[in-house]
Amino acid sequence: MMVIVSYDVNTETASGKKRLRNVSKICNDYGQRVQNSVFECLVDSTKLEEMKERLLKVYDEECDSLYFFNVGKKYENKVQSYGCKQVLDLGKPVVF
Amino acid sequence: MMVIVSYDVNTETASGKKRLRNVSKICNDYGQRVQNSVFECLVDSTKLEEMKERLLKVYDEECDSLYFFNVGKKYENKVQSYGCKQVLDLGKPVVF
Repeated sequence: MMVIVSYDVNTETASGKKRLRNVSKICNDYGQRVQNSVFECLVDSTKLEEMKERLLKVYDEECDSLYFFNVGKKYENKVQSYGCKQVLDLGKPVVF
Repeated sequence: MMVIVSYDVNTETASGKKRLRNVSKICNDYGQRVQNSVFECLVDSTKLEEMKERLLKVYDEECDSLYFFNVGKKYENKVQSYGCKQVLDLGKPVVF
């Protein structure tokens, strides 16, 4: 299923900047960045829970925000993008 | 239906800062901000097209990015948020 992960991390402090790097790194393990703080992740429910667990360990609930939008399995016509940063379609094989 | 709108607007120029204000203002007409550049919009298909049309008129396809994620009508258990900036549940009536 396609899950959109978006985050706002407060980077006013050095620890905030570190949290941002960690959150971004974790999201990268499960999907692809489509905007500065938005990732498309093709994951099953186990991987989703694993990703969530890892993210909830590194973010600060007092000043950061994490959103998970489950777009479902049939996501092709539910995601529309316009403008720059067009990205690979996760579902299609990458041919080199 | 619930549509998540997220945007990245290049604000390196004065015109970029203006585009950001316009994009944000338009999204505000259709939903509520849940993160810095992410809105939850409860709209029907007509309103969705109207919002898209307005946004596509003000953004710059060369350097801005717009994403629309259609989470569908039964969205309650498809959207999970953690941390600060908890927001009203659009679907429930606001009682004062």
